[in-house]
Amino acid sequence: MNKPIAGKLEAAAIPTGERPGSRKVWQAGVAWPDIRVPFREVAVHPSSGEPPVTMYDSSGPYTDPGASIDIEKGLPKTREPWVVSRGDVEIVANPREVKPEDNGFAKGEHLAPQFTAPRRVYRATSGAVTQMAYARRGIVTPEMEYVAIRENLRREAAGIRDGESFGAEIPDVCTPEFVRDEVARGRAIIPANINHTELEPMAIGRNFLVKVNANIGNSAVLSTVADEVDKMVWAIRWGADTVMDLSTGRNIHNIRDWILRNSPVPIGTVPIYQALEKVGGVAEDLNWEVFRDTLIEQAEQGVDYFTIHAGVRLPFIPLTAKRVTGIVSRGGSIMAKWCLAHHRENFLYERFEEICEIMKAYDVSFSLGDGLRPGSIADANDEAQFAELRTLGELTKIAWKHDVQTMIEGPGHVPMHKIKANMDEQLKHCHEAPFYTLGPLTTDVAPGYDHITSAIGAAMIGWFGTAMLCYVTPKEHLGLPDRQDVKDGVIAYKIAAHAADLAKGHPTARAWDDALSRARFEFRWEDQFNLGLDPETAREYHDESLPKEAFKTAHFCSMCGPKFCSMKISQDIRDAARAQNEVDSGMAEMAQKFREGGGEILVPVAPAE
Amino acid sequence: MNKPIAGKLEAAAIPTGERPGSRKVWQAGVAWPDIRVPFREVAVHPSSGEPPVTMYDSSGPYTDPGASIDIEKGLPKTREPWVVSRGDVEIVANPREVKPEDNGFAKGEHLAPQFTAPRRVYRATSGAVTQMAYARRGIVTPEMEYVAIRENLRREAAGIRDGESFGAEIPDVCTPEFVRDEVARGRAIIPANINHTELEPMAIGRNFLVKVNANIGNSAVLSTVADEVDKMVWAIRWGADTVMDLSTGRNIHNIRDWILRNSPVPIGTVPIYQALEKVGGVAEDLNWEVFRDTLIEQAEQGVDYFTIHAGVRLPFIPLTAKRVTGIVSRGGSIMAKWCLAHHRENFLYERFEEICEIMKAYDVSFSLGDGLRPGSIADANDEAQFAELRTLGELTKIAWKHDVQTMIEGPGHVPMHKIKANMDEQLKHCHEAPFYTLGPLTTDVAPGYDHITSAIGAAMIGWFGTAMLCYVTPKEHLGLPDRQDVKDGVIAYKIAAHAADLAKGHPTARAWDDALSRARFEFRWEDQFNLGLDPETAREYHDESLPKEAFKTAHFCSMCGPKFCSMKISQDIRDAARAQNEVDSGMAEMAQKFREGGGEILVPVAPAE
Repeated sequence: MNKPIAGKLEAAAIPTGERPGSRKVWQAGVAWPDIRVPFREVAVHPSSGEPPVTMYDSSGPYTDPGASIDIEKGLPKTREPWVVSRGDVEIVANPREVKPEDNGFAKGEHLAPQFTAPRRVYRATSGAVTQMAYARRGIVTPEMEYVAIRENLRREAAGIRDGESFGAEIPDVCTPEFVRDEVARGRAIIPANINHTELEPMAIGRNFLVKVNANIGNSAVLSTVADEVDKMVWAIRWGADTVMDLSTGRNIHNIRDWILRNSPVPIGTVPIYQALEKVGGVAEDLNWEVFRDTLIEQAEQGVDYFTIHAGVRLPFIPLTAKRVTGIVSRGGSIMAKWCLAHHRENFLYERFEEICEIMKAYDVSFSLGDGLRPGSIADANDEAQFAELRTLGELTKIAWKHDVQTMIEGPGHVPMHKIKANMDEQLKHCHEAPFYTLGPLTTDVAPGYDHITSAIGAAMIGWFGTAMLCYVTPKEHLGLPDRQDVKDGVIAYKIAAHAADLAKGHPTARAWDDALSRARFEFRWEDQFNLGLDPETAREYHDESLPKEAFKTAHFCSMCGPKFCSMKISQDIRDAARAQNEVDSGMAEMAQKFREGGGEILVPVAPAE
Repeated sequence: MNKPIAGKLEAAAIPTGERPGSRKVWQAGVAWPDIRVPFREVAVHPSSGEPPVTMYDSSGPYTDPGASIDIEKGLPKTREPWVVSRGDVEIVANPREVKPEDNGFAKGEHLAPQFTAPRRVYRATSGAVTQMAYARRGIVTPEMEYVAIRENLRREAAGIRDGESFGAEIPDVCTPEFVRDEVARGRAIIPANINHTELEPMAIGRNFLVKVNANIGNSAVLSTVADEVDKMVWAIRWGADTVMDLSTGRNIHNIRDWILRNSPVPIGTVPIYQALEKVGGVAEDLNWEVFRDTLIEQAEQGVDYFTIHAGVRLPFIPLTAKRVTGIVSRGGSIMAKWCLAHHRENFLYERFEEICEIMKAYDVSFSLGDGLRPGSIADANDEAQFAELRTLGELTKIAWKHDVQTMIEGPGHVPMHKIKANMDEQLKHCHEAPFYTLGPLTTDVAPGYDHITSAIGAAMIGWFGTAMLCYVTPKEHLGLPDRQDVKDGVIAYKIAAHAADLAKGHPTARAWDDALSRARFEFRWEDQFNLGLDPETAREYHDESLPKEAFKTAHFCSMCGPKFCSMKISQDIRDAARAQNEVDSGMAEMAQKFREGGGEILVPVAPAE
C-alpha cells in the first residue's frame, strides 16, 4: 500500500515568501540583545491614518524574504549558543545510532532518505536543564525574554481589556520576569528541547495568547517525507504554534528528522507509536526497554514534548466497558491492551520517575495524555475520563519535583453544557498546569465538518482557560488530512483561539478586530483582506463576482450592491450629519441626554438647517 | 451589469431525489387525519440490530420519489382546504395587479418571466386569521398538529435528557395542545400566510428544536430567477427550516413568486427593500403609502414573515455616531437615513398598528428587525442595540394585542463573553417572544470563514435559548453567496443548532449522536456516512484515500491505519475481555466497586485464566 519514497525532497514544494500585504519585522531583546523576535506587520492604506498592525508570527524563516531556505541543510541553529552558554550540557560522544527498527525496517525504495547535515547532540551533564529549573532558580533565559517580547506584540500598554477571564491573570504588558514566574509556578511551559536549536521559543499557558497545535504525520497507509515537511511548513504558515508528528507507519525516524531540522515551532510526538512499530505492532510485546530507547532516540533528535499516556491505569480500564465508543485515544488503547494482556499496571505509570529523569536531561516537556478521553457525546465527563484526569494531576506533581515542564491533555467529544466542568476539574486537580485540548467536538453528527463541530467547543474551552487547542480537520474520523485539510483545520482553530483571547479580555486581542472592522467600514478592501486570517481566500471570494481592480475601492460588494450597502448608507448619514455639525455636537449631545434620561426617549433636537 | 434573464427556468437544475441511505416516510394526524408529516428515515445495517433513525425533514416534496416536480406549476396547495375550512377568509376579488415598479421597471430580456399558474388570493373577512388568534381561542389547527408531530420525530417518550436548558421548558413529548399553548402565549410562532398554501408548517420557539434560516436573493449585481429557486431548494435539501428572500435588484416581485409557489418552508422578506426599489433607491423618498402597498403585494403573494425595522427610532440614531461600524443592517440604515433626512420619527414605528392590521388579515408574522445590531466586536451590546431591543419588546405587546405572531431579530457581531447578556435581555424585555439571531460572529478577523466565526456564537446563543439561527455563509462581507456557500452556511448552522439542542437536553437530540457514534465504533462506514449531516462529503473524504468497496467494512481508515486504530484496539480489548467473561460480570463489577469506593483505586480483579 505504501508509495515508494522519493530519493530527494522537492524543495520547490515548500511554501515560502511573505504573506500578502505583510512584512516580516523583528524586535531585539534587551537582556539578550542577540535575540530577534519575528512579527508579521500588516500595513494599512495611508488614507486611514492608522499605524500598521503587528501580528504574532509562528511561520519561521519561511516567510523571511532574506532567508535562503534549504531543507537539506535545515534551519539555522540560532538557539545553540544559548544552550551551550548555560554551561550545563555536554556533547553526547556516542549518540544513539539509527537502527533498522527505527524506520520500521523500511528498505530500498521504501526507505525515506536520511537527513544527513551534521549536528551535535546535547545532554545535561547532570540534573535538569529545563526552563522550569532555570525559572525556579530565578534565571531569566533568552527563551523567556523571547517569549515575553513575542507575547507582547510590541504593545507598550494594554489595549481594551473587555472580557471575562475566569480567573486567568493576563498582565497588561508581558515582561520576561512574568514569563519566568509563570514557568516556575508550572502555569506555563516553553517546550524547547536543547537539541531543537532551530526553535523560535513560544509559551503555552493560560495567561498567554491561546495557542493552536496542528497534527501531521503519515500513517501506514499514506504519505511521504516531502508531504509531511510540506504540511509542517504549510501549517505554521497559517498560524499553527506547535506541530505534532503523529507518524505511525514506517520511516518514522527519518521523517521526524526532516521535520525537526526544518521546524521553527515545537514538535510534539507520541513515543508509544514508534515503540509499537519497533515491536511489530503487537501491543502486548511493548516493554520498558524499547520505550526507554525510543524516548532517548527522540530526545536526542530534539522532540520538544512527549505525549505520555501514564494515566491509563489498569483499574480505570473497566470503567470504559459500557462506553459507546470505548477508548478512542490511539496511545490509550495501546496501553489498555498491554495492561489487560499482562494484567499489570501501566508501565508508564510505574516508571514515571524514570521517564522524568530522561526528559529533564534534554528539556522535553510532558504532554500528559488523556488516553481515556471520550470519543462521543455519550461518553463525555464520565468516571473513566475524570479518574484519569485526577491521576494526571498526581503525575504533574511528580514531574514538577523533577523540574520537568508539564501540560495536560483534554478531550475530545463534549456537549456544550459539559465543557466548563472539564476546565474546572483540570484546574482543580492539575494545579494550574496548562490544559491542552483536542476540540472538543460538540456533536458527533457531522463527519466531514469536525473542524466546525470542534471549533465551537475549542473556542469555549479556550475562553474558559485552555492554553493550547489541538486542531481537528475536516477529515477527522474519515482519513488522513491532506494539505487543504491542514489549512482548514488551522484556520478554524485560529478563529477559536482568537475568539477565546477576545472573550478573555487579552490586552492585544481587540486591536486586531477593530483594525479590520474599521477597514471594512471604510471600504478599504485590500486592508480588509490583508488583515484577515486568510487574505487569499477573502480576495478570491470578493473577486469571484467583482474581479475588476476598480471594485477594490468601491463602496459596496456584490452581496448587497450599491443601493443597499448599509455601510455606505451609514457613511452617507454620517457625512450628512457632519455637514450639519450634528455628529460632533448635536448628535453626541442627544446621545448624552438620552443616557442621562435613563434611556427614555427624548424629543429629537431640531435640525440645524 | 445584469445578466439577461432566461425565458424559461431550467427544471433540470433543481436537485431532487432522496438523500443517500434515506427514505421519505410520513405520519398522519389524529385530530386531522388528512395531514401527512414527512420525515427522513435513515436505515442502519441489520448487523446493528438497531431501528432506523428518524430525522426532521424540511426538504419538502423534492426528496419524495413519488412526487412529480414541475416548478412552472408550483407545489401542491395542500394547506388550501385547511385555510378555507376555517370559514374566516374570502377570495380577494381584485387582487393587487403587478405593476412595472414591482420588478424595478425591468423590461424585455431583463424582465424575469411571470409565474403564470393560476391561484386564488385570500384575505380575512374580518379580524385576525392568525395561528395566534386560533390558539388563544383554544383551537388546535391542523398546522398545530402538524408541528407537534413534526417536532416529536416519532418519539413516544423522551430520550436521554441530559442538558442545561436555562429555563426552557421542552416537554418529554410534544402534543398539539402544547403547540397551541406555546403559540397562544407568544413563545412560539408558526409562520404560515394563508396565501402560502404550499407550506409544510413548522414552529419557531425556545421549547422546540432550534431552527435554521438561509438567506437567498439576488442583488442588483448578480443572479437570476433560476439561481434563486435552485438555491432555495438546495438550502432546504441540506436542512434550512425557513428561507428569506432578500432580493434587492430588479425582478423582485417575479422572483418571489417563483420562490413562494415552489417553497414548502416559510419565506421571509424585508419589505422595505422592495419599497426602496419602487422609489428609485432614494431612501428619503420612502413613504407610508408605498410601504403599505408593498406589504399588501407581498401578503397577497404569501410571504410568511416580514422583517420590519420599526425599532430604529429617531432618538436612537445618534447613539450609533461613535460606533466603529455604524449601522450595518440594510433596512436599519435605510430607515435611519429616512429619519434623519426628514427629522421625523420612523414611520414604521408610528404606523405600527396599521401594519398589524394588514398582517393579521393574512397571518404574516413579524420578525422585528434589529436595525441597530452591532456590525463589529467593538459595537456589541451597546446602548443603541439595547435601546432598540427594549423598543422591540414594546412593539411585541402591540403585535400581540392584534394577535399577530412575532419573533425578535438579534445580532450580529458579539464576542463570546457578551452573548449570554443578549439572550437574557431579550427574554426580559421581549416577553419570551422567540429570538432569531444572525450568528453572532465571535470575531471580525476571518473574512472568508464567517460561517465558522458565527457558528461558534450561534451554537452558544442557541443553547441559551435562541429559537432560530440565521445562517452566515463564507461569502459574508465579501460577495453574494453561490450554491456552495449556501450549502456550507446551512451545514455549519445545522451543526450549531444541533449542538444547541444537545446542550439544552432536547429529548430527541442525543439519539442521533449515539446512533452515529455506535456506527462509528462498529465500523459501519455506510451508516456513519448516511447518519451524518452530509453523507456525500463524508463518503468522498473517506474514499479519497481508500476508495475500494472492501474498505467500507474495514476496521480502520487512512487516518491511523490498521495497527493504530483505537476503536479497533478497543474492540479487540472488549472481545478478549468478553471471552474471559469480564465485560459482563467482572469488569462491570470492578467499575461498580470503583464507584462505591468513592473513586479510589482498587487492586484489579485477578484474571480468570
